[in-house]
Amino acid sequence: MPSELENCMEGLIKVFHRYAKNGSLTRQNLRQLMEAELSSFLKCQKDPAAVDKIMKDLDANGDGLVNFEEFVSLVVGLSVACEQCYQLEMKKTGKK
Amino acid sequence: MPSELENCMEGLIKVFHRYAKNGSLTRQNLRQLMEAELSSFLKCQKDPAAVDKIMKDLDANGDGLVNFEEFVSLVVGLSVACEQCYQLEMKKTGKK
Repeated sequence: MPSELENCMEGLIKVFHRYAKNGSLTRQNLRQLMEAELSSFLKCQKDPAAVDKIMKDLDANGDGLVNFEEFVSLVVGLSVACEQCYQLEMKKTGKK
Repeated sequence: MPSELENCMEGLIKVFHRYAKNGSLTRQNLRQLMEAELSSFLKCQKDPAAVDKIMKDLDANGDGLVNFEEFVSLVVGLSVACEQCYQLEMKKTGKK
């Protein structure tokens, strides 16, 4: 049976490929993915061009498509930000 | 209700903090985490010093501890490798 961490890694791959065409996300695919999977994050973005800006940031090789490696860098950025909040919260509440 | 991607990000944070002490993993914590969460991967490593080498690779700032950001780079590396296998497999079987 896969571990929790293995399930997470599989989840990243599955979510990406649910929206990807031929192994990459177009701008429209990325928008669909973010609207479905990161809707709370998107709602906090006041800039209506947020997805376009994120697309530009992620597309490291400038081909207009986001591959899995580029997509993962978005997940890393968000996870690291969430984890910093988590640590702050733990310090406040005095847990571990 | 959190999305699948949000659950994955939460899972990464939870797994890390299950083994971390004061927000970082010592070498021993990393070993415990990998033995519990990445046992199939560890079994494939023929080098008995694999965890020590991974620790050295991950510890980008050289403080002898692995913080969340450093830990995530391991998850990214493994996920990207898994995803490449997944793409190859999909091509072989002729699925999307």
